Amino acid sequence: MSDVEAVAGVGPATARKLATLDITSASDLANIPLSDLQTLDGIGATRAMDLVTAAQNTLESEDAAAERAVTDGGVVADDTTDADVGPTPETPSNDVVATIVTHGDPIRSLTELASVVVDELRLHVTEDGLEFTAVDPANVGMVDASAPAEGFSKFDVEREVTVGLNLHLFEKAVSWARKGRSDDGDPVRIQILDDPARVRVQVTRPDQSVARRTEWFSIDPDSIRPEPDIPDLDLPCTATPNVTALRHATGAFERDHAHLSRSGTTMLLGTNADGDTTPDGEADDELGESVMFPNAAHDMGDEGVSSVFSLDYLGDFAQALKSSKADRVTIRWGDQFPVKLAFEHEDWGFAGEFMLAPRIQKEGGA
Amino acid sequence: MSDVEAVAGVGPATARKLATLDITSASDLANIPLSDLQTLDGIGATRAMDLVTAAQNTLESEDAAAERAVTDGGVVADDTTDADVGPTPETPSNDVVATIVTHGDPIRSLTELASVVVDELRLHVTEDGLEFTAVDPANVGMVDASAPAEGFSKFDVEREVTVGLNLHLFEKAVSWARKGRSDDGDPVRIQILDDPARVRVQVTRPDQSVARRTEWFSIDPDSIRPEPDIPDLDLPCTATPNVTALRHATGAFERDHAHLSRSGTTMLLGTNADGDTTPDGEADDELGESVMFPNAAHDMGDEGVSSVFSLDYLGDFAQALKSSKADRVTIRWGDQFPVKLAFEHEDWGFAGEFMLAPRIQKEGGA
Amino acid sequence: MSDVEAVAGVGPATARKLATLDITSASDLANIPLSDLQTLDGIGATRAMDLVTAAQNTLESEDAAAERAVTDGGVVADDTTDADVGPTPETPSNDVVATIVTHGDPIRSLTELASVVVDELRLHVTEDGLEFTAVDPANVGMVDASAPAEGFSKFDVEREVTVGLNLHLFEKAVSWARKGRSDDGDPVRIQILDDPARVRVQVTRPDQSVARRTEWFSIDPDSIRPEPDIPDLDLPCTATPNVTALRHATGAFERDHAHLSRSGTTMLLGTNADGDTTPDGEADDELGESVMFPNAAHDMGDEGVSSVFSLDYLGDFAQALKSSKADRVTIRWGDQFPVKLAFEHEDWGFAGEFMLAPRIQKEGGA
Repeated sequence: MSDVEAVAGVGPATARKLATLDITSASDLANIPLSDLQTLDGIGATRAMDLVTAAQNTLESEDAAAERAVTDGGVVADDTTDADVGPTPETPSNDVVATIVTHGDPIRSLTELASVVVDELRLHVTEDGLEFTAVDPANVGMVDASAPAEGFSKFDVEREVTVGLNLHLFEKAVSWARKGRSDDGDPVRIQILDDPARVRVQVTRPDQSVARRTEWFSIDPDSIRPEPDIPDLDLPCTATPNVTALRHATGAFERDHAHLSRSGTTMLLGTNADGDTTPDGEADDELGESVMFPNAAHDMGDEGVSSVFSLDYLGDFAQALKSSKADRVTIRWGDQFPVKLAFEHEDWGFAGEFMLAPRIQKEGGA
Repeated sequence: MSDVEAVAGVGPATARKLATLDITSASDLANIPLSDLQTLDGIGATRAMDLVTAAQNTLESEDAAAERAVTDGGVVADDTTDADVGPTPETPSNDVVATIVTHGDPIRSLTELASVVVDELRLHVTEDGLEFTAVDPANVGMVDASAPAEGFSKFDVEREVTVGLNLHLFEKAVSWARKGRSDDGDPVRIQILDDPARVRVQVTRPDQSVARRTEWFSIDPDSIRPEPDIPDLDLPCTATPNVTALRHATGAFERDHAHLSRSGTTMLLGTNADGDTTPDGEADDELGESVMFPNAAHDMGDEGVSSVFSLDYLGDFAQALKSSKADRVTIRWGDQFPVKLAFEHEDWGFAGEFMLAPRIQKEGGA
Repeated sequence: MSDVEAVAGVGPATARKLATLDITSASDLANIPLSDLQTLDGIGATRAMDLVTAAQNTLESEDAAAERAVTDGGVVADDTTDADVGPTPETPSNDVVATIVTHGDPIRSLTELASVVVDELRLHVTEDGLEFTAVDPANVGMVDASAPAEGFSKFDVEREVTVGLNLHLFEKAVSWARKGRSDDGDPVRIQILDDPARVRVQVTRPDQSVARRTEWFSIDPDSIRPEPDIPDLDLPCTATPNVTALRHATGAFERDHAHLSRSGTTMLLGTNADGDTTPDGEADDELGESVMFPNAAHDMGDEGVSSVFSLDYLGDFAQALKSSKADRVTIRWGDQFPVKLAFEHEDWGFAGEFMLAPRIQKEGGA
C-alpha cells in the first residue's frame, strides 16, 4: 500500500497537512470525505476533489499491477508497478494497457479532427503519443495527425497498442468535459484496457463534485479500413488564411463547390478561378461570388493555377480546425490537384494535415 | 375614495411630493401620466410605474369590496370603498377571492414544480399560502409542495378556495415575466375571481412601460383527478447531490433507466448497482456507464440497497429543481422502493417533495 | 494614376509615412502586403485593411470612369483615370452607375424594413439617397421608406436609376457583415452596375483579413409590381409605445388578431376594444387578454375608436422595427381604419411608415 506521497500532486507539505487528519496512505486519502479535507488550510473544493481522484487513480494502478502479478502466479516485487508480467487469459479483468490523463479542450479538439473524416479509426498508442491516419468512405477526404505524449498531463503506456476506436462513443464520452474558460476544461482520464479489449473514459467536474465513467468494447482493428497512403505532392501555391474566415467563407456560397486560386498575395475562393464575379448565366438569381483573403498567399507559383473543391468537405475541415482552435493552417494547392491543409496546435503539440481531392473539371471550366 | 397614502408604498414623504402635482387620492395617482410623475425628485421610470400600478390595484380592491358589499345587500362602512360606483347584483363580474402579488422568478419556479408532473391541478389557496399534491397520469411520479404566504409580496385571501388550475395557461401567463438579473424578476399579480370562477394574471414590465393581463375560467375542481396519498416510507439511504450535476447525470446515459445506489459516501447512478462499468453484453456499441457523486451520500444503511428508475422522470424532476433554483435536494431510496426527492427554496420558503416509483426488476438484475 | 492622397482617408501625414515604404500612388497602396503596412507607426491591422481597401476602391472608380470615357468614345481628360487599363467597347462589363459605402448595421436595418413586406422591389437611387414603396402580395401591408445620402459613408450616383432588387439575394449578401459592438458593423460597399444591369456587394471583415464579394443580375423593374399609393388618412388616435414592448405584445396572444384602442393615456391591444379581459365564451381554455401601454397614448380623439388587426402582420412590422433599431415608432389609428406605424432612425436618417389594413368587423364585435 502506497504512502500518501505516492499520490500525484502530494508533496511533503501537503503530506504533513494530511497527517493532521491521520491520512498517511493513498488509501486513507481515497476514502476521506471531501468536507473533511476542506477543513485543512488552503484546500478548497476543487483541490480536495483533485486529491481524492489522484489517490483513487494511484490505488487503481496498484490494483492493476497487483492483478497482473497475481494472475500470473508471480510475486508482487515492489509496491508501485510490475510491468514485465502479463495477464493470463482467465480473469484479467482490469488489465490497464495505457492511461492518459488530460483535459476536455485538447482531447475534444483531437477527436474533432478525426470525426470530421470517419466514424471509427485505428488509433496507434505508443510511448511517443497518439497517431492516426484515415480516409473517408468516399475516398475524397483524408486526415493524418499525431499528438505527442508531452501534450498530455500523464501518458503511461504499458505496451504499444492499436485500438479500434468508435469515435461516436468516444466523442460522447469526452463531451461531458465542459469547456475551460481560463484553463483547458474538465479533467479527463482515458484508459485502454485489455481482455476483453475496451476503452474507459472518466470525466470529472470538480465544481459539481461529480464524475462520469463510460466503458465500452473497442473494435477489432483488423475490421477497420486500413490507413491510406497520403501522397507526397508538389503543390506550387501556398496560403495561410485566418481559420475563422476560411470557415465562414466556405459557408457563404450558394453553390456547393468553388475554385481555389490566388491573385498576387490574395488567396481567392470563388465562382471563377480569376476572382471575377460577373454571373455566368442568364438567370436572375444566379450569383457570382468571391471571397478574398488579402495578404494570405505567398506570391510565387503560377497565378493561373487553380482547382475546384467541394465546399462541404472544405467547410467541414475548416470547422474542425476552428472548433479545435488550431493556431495555424497552411493551405497548399496546384492545378487540378488535391489541396492539403496542414495544421498545428501550439499548446498541445498536435500536428497533421487534411487532404481533399479536387472535383474533376471539364475542359475550360468547372 | 381613498387618500393617496392608502396606496401601497406611499408614505407621508411621498404623499407630500405627490401633493405638489395635486395628487391627493389613489384615483388621482392611478390616472397621472408617468412622465409627469417623473418630474418629481427621486422618482424614475420604474418607481413611477410601480406607484401607478399600486394605485390602480388599490382602486380595484375597493371596487371589489364595494361589489361584495352591494351584492351582499350590505352597507359599505368605511372610507376605503366607494359603494355607489359598484355594479348591480346581476353582473358581479369582479368578485376578487384572493390577490397574490409576487415576482416572476418565484411564481415560475413554483409552476415548474407542478407542471413537470401534471397539466392541471387542484390548487389550495388559504391564509397560510398555496398548496398542491398531484400524481402523473401514469401513476409513476408525484409532487407535493407548499408555498407559504410570507414568501409573496402580498397575499390577501378573502376566503379559502380550491382552484382548478389549467397549468398550461397559467405557465404561459406568468412566463411573460422576465427573469430577474439582480432581483426576482418582473412584478406579477394573480387574482382568483368568483362567479364565474376564473383566474386573472397581470405581469408588468416597468422598464418597457407595459403590462399584460390574461384571464380565463378555472376548471371545476371536482373534475380534476383527486390528490394521491403520498406514502410514508422507511428509506434507508440518503444523499444530497449537486442539483445541476444530478440533472446532467440523468441526461448522460444511452439507456432510459439506471440503478441508484451508494458506495461509502459516494452516491452512484449507473448501469449496474455496484458502479462497475464493464459492459454486460457482447455488442461493440454497448456501454457501461456510471456517474459518481463523491461525498454526497450518508454512510449508513446497507450498501447493497439499490433501485432502478426511469431516467426520463428523474431527469424531468432534476430539471424542474434546477430551473426553479432549488437550494437543496435530499434524495432518499431503498431496495426496490420508490425514491423521494425533497426540495427547499430558502428565499421563498417553498418546500415539498417528488416521489418516483421504481421500475420492476427481475430476479438478479434490471 | 492617382497620387496616394487621392485615396479616402489618406492625408498628408499618412502620405509621408507611406512614402517611407515607397508608396506614392493609389496603385502602390492597393498592392502592398498588409504586414508591411503594419510596420508603420500607428497603423494596426484594421487601419491597414481600411487603407488597402480604400486604395482598391479608388482604382476601381478610376477604372469605371475610364471605361465610360472609352466606351463613350470620349477622351480621358485628367489624371484621376488610367485610360490604358480600360476594357474595350465590346465588353463594358464594369460600368458603375452608383457606389454606396456604408456599414452592416444601417444597410441590414434598411433591408429588414423592406423584406418584411416583399421579396423584390423597385429601389430608387438618386443623388438624395434611396427610396422605396411596396405592398405585400395580399394587399394588406405596405411600406414606404427613404434613406438620405447623408446617412451613408459614401453615396456616389453617376445617374439616377431604378433597380429591380431581389431582396433575398441582397439580404444574404449584406448579412455577411457582422453586427457592430461599438460601431456600425463591418464595412459594406454596394455597386449598381450597368449593361447588363446588376448589383455587386462587397463586405469586408477587417479583423479576419477577408472580404466577400457577391454579384447578380438585377430584375427588370417593369416586371415588378408597381408601387402602391399610400392613402393620406385622417386618423384620430396616436400613441408612441416602446418598440420592444410592442413586439412582445403581438406575440403574447393566443388568437391571431386584436383590437387596438386606448383608454385615457393608455394604449390597449386586447381581446376586446375596452380592455376588459373577462373571457367571452364558455370554454375552459378561452382567454381574455389585454396588453396595456400606460402613458403611451395621446389623450385626444374618441376613446371608443378601435380597429382590429392581424397580429401576424403587426408582429412582423414590430419585429422589423425592433431588429432595425428604430428609435421611435408613432402609431396612428381610427375606427375600422388602417393603422400607420411611422418610424425614424436618428443616426442614419431613415424615415418612413408601415400601413396595415384592418380586419373587417361584423356589426357589434370582432
